[in-house]
Amino acid sequence: MTRRSTSTIRVRYGETDRMGVAYHAHYLVWCEVGRTDLIRSLGPSYAEMEQGGVRLAVAEATVRYRASARYDDLVRIETRLERAQSRAVTFAYRLLREPEESAEGQAPEPALLATATTALLALDPTGRPRVMPDHVRELFRRLA
Amino acid sequence: MTRRSTSTIRVRYGETDRMGVAYHAHYLVWCEVGRTDLIRSLGPSYAEMEQGGVRLAVAEATVRYRASARYDDLVRIETRLERAQSRAVTFAYRLLREPEESAEGQAPEPALLATATTALLALDPTGRPRVMPDHVRELFRRLA
Amino acid sequence: MTRRSTSTIRVRYGETDRMGVAYHAHYLVWCEVGRTDLIRSLGPSYAEMEQGGVRLAVAEATVRYRASARYDDLVRIETRLERAQSRAVTFAYRLLREPEESAEGQAPEPALLATATTALLALDPTGRPRVMPDHVRELFRRLA
Amino acid sequence: MTRRSTSTIRVRYGETDRMGVAYHAHYLVWCEVGRTDLIRSLGPSYAEMEQGGVRLAVAEATVRYRASARYDDLVRIETRLERAQSRAVTFAYRLLREPEESAEGQAPEPALLATATTALLALDPTGRPRVMPDHVRELFRRLA
Repeated sequence: MTRRSTSTIRVRYGETDRMGVAYHAHYLVWCEVGRTDLIRSLGPSYAEMEQGGVRLAVAEATVRYRASARYDDLVRIETRLERAQSRAVTFAYRLLREPEESAEGQAPEPALLATATTALLALDPTGRPRVMPDHVRELFRRLA
Repeated sequence: MTRRSTSTIRVRYGETDRMGVAYHAHYLVWCEVGRTDLIRSLGPSYAEMEQGGVRLAVAEATVRYRASARYDDLVRIETRLERAQSRAVTFAYRLLREPEESAEGQAPEPALLATATTALLALDPTGRPRVMPDHVRELFRRLA
Repeated sequence: MTRRSTSTIRVRYGETDRMGVAYHAHYLVWCEVGRTDLIRSLGPSYAEMEQGGVRLAVAEATVRYRASARYDDLVRIETRLERAQSRAVTFAYRLLREPEESAEGQAPEPALLATATTALLALDPTGRPRVMPDHVRELFRRLA
Repeated sequence: MTRRSTSTIRVRYGETDRMGVAYHAHYLVWCEVGRTDLIRSLGPSYAEMEQGGVRLAVAEATVRYRASARYDDLVRIETRLERAQSRAVTFAYRLLREPEESAEGQAPEPALLATATTALLALDPTGRPRVMPDHVRELFRRLA
């Protein structure tokens, strides 16, 4: 189990817009890539919860954009679980532009592209909020 | 029931890419908007087929791009059913840039942006090709 | 000039996810549809600002999800300008599921799907924040 | 320089649709990921062509879907240059589901998800087709 996960994606051509930078809505997609990687580390317990019909739906999302991501940029997504409650979990993200290796071999600093948080709510199969199963709550609490 | 349907969409900012034009993959999304409108005209029979577990999945798609769509362009999607078979239906599309009203009140010609076809295959709930129910085949045959 | 704008979109098949509802990142795309319609009402002054190299970039976005939008739902986007400053403007949105006409002719209430805000920052051609031209600031102030 | 390139992507949640599988339009986005990787191997010559105002635009795309990609599937994209002409280049793609490592350590076969081709046309800054610079044509010819 990892308390934080690090994922990387490369900005796709179709993710840019006519300003020449990555369109802002895609940052939420990238956050989900990070969240998926963190949740995968929880192992089979989480998948069993989903098979039992309990799913986590995004209830609130906030993104603060600091710098533009460009086509072909390598973006690092750092994800951590910020808060775990009985019906909800909140994830926090930092998106950074990974510096490409330079010719001189020096390592430039990664640039902060955005910070974000998403709160997810546990829903039963009919879409109503519900308490998460005990063993899943326990998993999330240990991550927080 | 309409033999052809006409739909219109406006190109969204997030659909453009850094070339300043609509990204080519979105044309398939627009074709689906047209197909949905044509299929809606089939009435409840089609929805009943889906509730019965038979769904149509895209098996082949071809797009020929003629001119670029730009941000905020009004795009007209003309959809018709080209061929109906027992397990498959093929739709054909024409995407045109709808001319905006000009100051002089003259009506400029719409510009052809793309033509496309998609072949859809009927699948059972396990994902295997199957024959469409008789009444749906009959509906599609009358459209073709 | 409109102080508020109302736009409508229909949820596309490709906007749903495997939960069967509209994927949460698309709500930001729909907000932009509403913002575009509101800004269009500003007339040529805004377009001239863009041609002069000043553009508005999303600096912060917040979405609160209340109910799920489903495939083929008609979504109404209400947009208003919440705050106008010299370098930034904040827009607020309400997304509602437009009730389809019922057989009995009664008008059901629209359901609130989400509320959102986006703060946009004026950037010069090099990507640095800058003060908006006077006449554009004046336009935004009258909207707020 | 590589005559074929291999790229891998993982299917994102937002790329699925309510059928529970990856939405068909995203396959074109994945093809572009493969094409980008192949073109990157051409080195600075290609980038110089773009800086000189010549760009390649998709003129035709064909996708044949064989099997569904699902959420979190690892997809391998094999890209090769099929044909190089003075004004156009055609790329061919095979998309395969990469088998996850099984518990027994045996290597299951990758499953073919789709084959595709895209023809790209060289355009000058005004959007008109033009002959590619000699050294770029030479690069593409050596790949074909």
